[in-house]
Amino acid sequence: MTSFKERLHNGYAQTMELAGAPLVDEKSKYQHIKIFDTVSNGRVMTLDGVVQITSRDESAYAEMLTHLPMLEHGKVKSVMIVGGGDLSIADEALKHKGVKEVILVDIDGDVIAHCKKHFGEINAKAFRDKRLKIEVADAFEFLARKENKARFDLIIGDRPDPIGPGKALFGETFYDRIKNALKPGGFATFQTGVPFYQPSEITDALKELKTHFSRSGLYLTVVPTYIGGFMTLSWAGKGAARLGTPAGIKKAARAYKRLKLKTDYYNPAVHAAAFALPEWIARLVP
Amino acid sequence: MTSFKERLHNGYAQTMELAGAPLVDEKSKYQHIKIFDTVSNGRVMTLDGVVQITSRDESAYAEMLTHLPMLEHGKVKSVMIVGGGDLSIADEALKHKGVKEVILVDIDGDVIAHCKKHFGEINAKAFRDKRLKIEVADAFEFLARKENKARFDLIIGDRPDPIGPGKALFGETFYDRIKNALKPGGFATFQTGVPFYQPSEITDALKELKTHFSRSGLYLTVVPTYIGGFMTLSWAGKGAARLGTPAGIKKAARAYKRLKLKTDYYNPAVHAAAFALPEWIARLVP
Repeated sequence: MTSFKERLHNGYAQTMELAGAPLVDEKSKYQHIKIFDTVSNGRVMTLDGVVQITSRDESAYAEMLTHLPMLEHGKVKSVMIVGGGDLSIADEALKHKGVKEVILVDIDGDVIAHCKKHFGEINAKAFRDKRLKIEVADAFEFLARKENKARFDLIIGDRPDPIGPGKALFGETFYDRIKNALKPGGFATFQTGVPFYQPSEITDALKELKTHFSRSGLYLTVVPTYIGGFMTLSWAGKGAARLGTPAGIKKAARAYKRLKLKTDYYNPAVHAAAFALPEWIARLVP
Repeated sequence: MTSFKERLHNGYAQTMELAGAPLVDEKSKYQHIKIFDTVSNGRVMTLDGVVQITSRDESAYAEMLTHLPMLEHGKVKSVMIVGGGDLSIADEALKHKGVKEVILVDIDGDVIAHCKKHFGEINAKAFRDKRLKIEVADAFEFLARKENKARFDLIIGDRPDPIGPGKALFGETFYDRIKNALKPGGFATFQTGVPFYQPSEITDALKELKTHFSRSGLYLTVVPTYIGGFMTLSWAGKGAARLGTPAGIKKAARAYKRLKLKTDYYNPAVHAAAFALPEWIARLVP
């Protein structure tokens, strides 16, 4: 293996040249895990041949799923992460001092172990943080447990594409369970695909969110190795509050300053800009 | 040729599967021109192996270089396009009824002829518009002509990457000539590369612009096949006016509504959002 080729979308591929021998190349109980260094994109993890995280652009994904809802909510104490075995999202959530617990539920313990070893620059601090609890379990099942009813202020769906072991994380029941596990006034955020190559994901996800939640919507980030330009993120709220209102954006800007968050992608201007949808994306919103 | 592979950045490549035989595959006096249909990205033109335009995402590039400065300026009558042989930018500029002339100066007449034949969906209307004048000439030389002194309200630098026949379009003298050909109060816009893979282009270009113009700055678009997420565009002004001020953005929003512009990417919210730089890009600004 001297180069990695990703064929996620029909008729299109991206290729990254490796810098050295792969660090991990093995099958877990659930999927084929590879971790390797590249010439152009830093350290990369793929699952079943699809890029999950690169050290060069993970901030655009993790920060936007995390800080945006946390800063607008303002009082997040309890966070659940669906998936997220690389801990990049946990690391961002734990930057907020008001947070009491971050529960990460990933089905694949091997992913967590390999990422602990090879993505220390991103997650070493999170692994040492006593507020983090890791459960190697099926998030779909975890959400249905009695003790998790109305437990979380924020649930972040760091789910893969709707293929492989992540498939159940796109069904109707999944959103129902998310809603049950949220506190009143809580938010959930999800990755909703790259609309340039996966246009129906937006339509499908937003229809589901509208059915299950009183409030929901879309915002954008740009993660170069999630190929196709914009990635859409979606949010859902259990209550009357919306994300992305002028008041919410102002509140987030004040909180960002007060907390002195260190970020590589997120800032208050980017927060506001994330809700501006180009015409072709706006047309995909149901 | 059943697939096209672009190797623009060190260690990285993108591959598009062709849908049918190539439409054009020949060398002009200046460069190797290919036009072909793809499974995932519509119709594509490459020059010397680098993607120049695709029918699926050209709007994100052409609209942002054109409408953003035109709507903020408000009284653009005369436009020059440096390069732009596919006419996608000319087509956007000609949507403004107040425009009296659009002069497109491309060195390669073969590019123009092939694009006329194969990108009619984008440029047929522009080719029929009597306000458009096409000069097959070296834009660098054209800008220095006496009759072009202080002639244009807007000059759009649709230049390729700083390699091949476009090289002179990145030097110090080029910016000086642009300035001379602009009317007082006029603006110029340029593509300034994809910072994720070409970080030094921003720094170099903005330093040059600061030396030659009283006002300059950066804004963003996202063109999926200009691989790497965000593409930076830069602007320079001959006068006291800046682009991207709250007043300018409001003015543009009113004008957009009044003119009933039909766009696929640009809208007033996207206009405002284009000036929000993610932290990692803001750090590259000199």
